[in-house]
Amino acid sequence: MTKAKGYAVHDAKSELGPWNFERREVGPHDVQFDISYCGVCHSDLHQVRNEWGNSIYPMVPGHELVGKVVKVGSHVKKYKAGDLVGVGCMVESCRTCKNCKEGLEQFCAEGAVMTYNGYERDKKTPTYGGYSNIVVVNEDFVLKVSDKLNLAAVAPLLCAGITTYSPLRHWKVGKGHKLAVLGLGGLGHMAVKFGVSFGAEVTVLSSSPSKKDDALKLGAHKFVVTSDEEQIKSVLGYFDFILDTVSAEHDYSKYISLLSTNGVHICVGAPPTPSQIHSFSLIMGRKSLAGSLIGGIPETQEMLDYCAEHNIVSDIELIDIKDINKAYERMLKSDVKYRFVIDIATL
Amino acid sequence: MTKAKGYAVHDAKSELGPWNFERREVGPHDVQFDISYCGVCHSDLHQVRNEWGNSIYPMVPGHELVGKVVKVGSHVKKYKAGDLVGVGCMVESCRTCKNCKEGLEQFCAEGAVMTYNGYERDKKTPTYGGYSNIVVVNEDFVLKVSDKLNLAAVAPLLCAGITTYSPLRHWKVGKGHKLAVLGLGGLGHMAVKFGVSFGAEVTVLSSSPSKKDDALKLGAHKFVVTSDEEQIKSVLGYFDFILDTVSAEHDYSKYISLLSTNGVHICVGAPPTPSQIHSFSLIMGRKSLAGSLIGGIPETQEMLDYCAEHNIVSDIELIDIKDINKAYERMLKSDVKYRFVIDIATL
Repeated sequence: MTKAKGYAVHDAKSELGPWNFERREVGPHDVQFDISYCGVCHSDLHQVRNEWGNSIYPMVPGHELVGKVVKVGSHVKKYKAGDLVGVGCMVESCRTCKNCKEGLEQFCAEGAVMTYNGYERDKKTPTYGGYSNIVVVNEDFVLKVSDKLNLAAVAPLLCAGITTYSPLRHWKVGKGHKLAVLGLGGLGHMAVKFGVSFGAEVTVLSSSPSKKDDALKLGAHKFVVTSDEEQIKSVLGYFDFILDTVSAEHDYSKYISLLSTNGVHICVGAPPTPSQIHSFSLIMGRKSLAGSLIGGIPETQEMLDYCAEHNIVSDIELIDIKDINKAYERMLKSDVKYRFVIDIATL
Repeated sequence: MTKAKGYAVHDAKSELGPWNFERREVGPHDVQFDISYCGVCHSDLHQVRNEWGNSIYPMVPGHELVGKVVKVGSHVKKYKAGDLVGVGCMVESCRTCKNCKEGLEQFCAEGAVMTYNGYERDKKTPTYGGYSNIVVVNEDFVLKVSDKLNLAAVAPLLCAGITTYSPLRHWKVGKGHKLAVLGLGGLGHMAVKFGVSFGAEVTVLSSSPSKKDDALKLGAHKFVVTSDEEQIKSVLGYFDFILDTVSAEHDYSKYISLLSTNGVHICVGAPPTPSQIHSFSLIMGRKSLAGSLIGGIPETQEMLDYCAEHNIVSDIELIDIKDINKAYERMLKSDVKYRFVIDIATL
C-alpha cells in the first residue's frame, strides 16, 4: 500500500479535516498521479453531510481531479510519468454490460465505481476522492489533459463540464437552436460556455437579476429573470431546449411552457423531492422532460479535447484546503463564481 | 346554408338526442360529403359532459368521420363526387405559422379549428362533428380513404390511429426496439397493431389479466400484468419505448423504471390530475417523459395510406346512433373491443 494524505470527514455532523490513509499499490493497468487541483462540487457537500443517505465514512470527497502522472503499471500504454491527467466521477465499471460497451459507463448495469463514497468492484474496499495528494486509478478511467489550459480551471470540467457538455451533444444542440440555461452556478456557467461555443442562442434563466451582467459576460445572448412574469411571458414557447441545472425544488411545468414544439427540458440537477407534472403540458407541442447524468469516459475525453481546442475552462476561485469548510458555507449561499478549486499544494 | 341532422347534447347533464342544424354552403375550396360512419372517442364523452370545462352547447360530437363526397367547390382539385374521404380532429388552422407550414397543424400557433366543440376561424361560428349526416370541410383538411378497407373500421384511424401512429413514427420505433403499450383500449389496440407492423417487439402492459389473450391475438409478443410485482420486476429496464395510452391517474415513475438507457415514455393519454415525477428517475439512464397529440394532416394521410397498404384497421363494434348513450356507459366500463363506430345510416 502507498501512504496518502487528504481531508476527510468521519461522520455527517463533523467538518472536514486532515486524515492519513492508504492507496493501493500501482497494478499493471494502473496510473498513479500527484493531484494538483481538485474541484469542489455541490454534491461533495451533500455526501459529506449524508444528505442522500448513502454516505460511507471516513469520506475523502472530490471527483474533479487533475494532476501529473508519477508512476504507471507495467501494462499501461496510454500514459507515462509527467503526463497531465484527470479523473472525474468514476474510476471503474463492469466493462461488459451494454452501457459500458457503448461508452456509457455512468449507466453501468452493475453500477459504476464512484471516485469517492463508493466501493471498488470487490464491493468492500472504499474509494477515496480528490481532496488528497495522490490517487491510483485504472488507466481506462484516466483522462488526458492538455497543457494549453490553466490546469486548476480544467478540474471542474471533469464533472460540471461533462454534465453539461454531454446532454448538449446528445440532443445535438447547436446553430439555429434557442437554448435556455436554467440556473447560473457551477453547472450553468459551463452550459452557457458550451451552448455559445456550439452556436446556439443562449438565454440564462435565473431568479437573481444581479446575475445578468455575469451571464452576458460569459457569452449568453439574453437574460430572463424567472420571477418577473412579464419577462417570462416574453419567452413563452420560445426555446428549443432548456438545460435545467437547478437542484432546489422547482416547478417543471412553468419552464415546459417556455418550450417550442418538440422542445426538450433536460434535467441535470436533481431536486430532493419530486415535482408535479401534467402530461397535457408535454402533449401540447410534443415536448419532453428528460434527464442526463455526467457522461461516459469516451465523451469525457472528447469534451476535454474540445475544451483544449476551443480554450474553454471553468471560472474558478482557487482555495487553500484549510478553507474547505468555509467554502462549503459560501457554496450554500451560491457565493462562488463559479467553482471552488482546491490547490492541493496547500495540503 | 345546407340543412343537416345529427345527434347533439344541449348541456352537460343531458343525453345525446336528435337535432337539426345547418352546415355552410360549399365554398370554392370546400368538400361536402355524406358521413357513412363516425367513430366514438373517449374524448367525445369528456366533452359532452363538460369534463374539460370548455364545452360549447349545443354540441354535435364526433371527430372520426368517413364517407362519400357529394359536392365539391369550384377550386377543389383533390376530390370529386363519389370519392371516399375522411376527416379527423381538425378542420382548419392558420396555415401560416411555423407549425402549420411544417404540417403540424395540431400545434397551430393560433389554435387549430377542432372538428367539433370549437369555433371556425371567425372565432364565433361553432363547429359540429360527425354524429351527423353531412359535413362541409375545406379540402386541405379532408383525407383520402382507400376503398380496399372496411370503411366503418377506417373511421377510428382518424383519431385513435393517428394518435398512436404519429409518436411511433416521430421516435422511429421499429425493428430491434422493445415497445411497451400501456393500456389496451381504443388507442392501445391501434398502438399494438402499428408497433407490430413497424417491426418492434410489442408488450402490452395492462392491469387486467383478462386482456392477455386479446393482446396476443392483436399481435403483441408479450403481456405483463401491471399489478403483479413479479411480472413488473421481470421487465425492469427492459423497454426502449412505452406508449402510454392511459388517461386515468397513474404513477409515471413506476413505468419509467421499466425503460432502458435512453428510453422514452410517451404520453398520449392525459390524466385529469398531474403526476409526481422525480428528476432522478430520468437522470439515471438518460430517460425522457414525452407527450404527443394526434398528428398533422400530411402524416394523417400517410397513416391512412400505410393502413391501406398493410391492411390495418381498427377493431370495432358498429352501433345504431340511437344506442349512443348506452355506448357511452359501456365505454366508461371499458366494455368495448375496441372502438364503437356509429352507422350513420341509422340516423
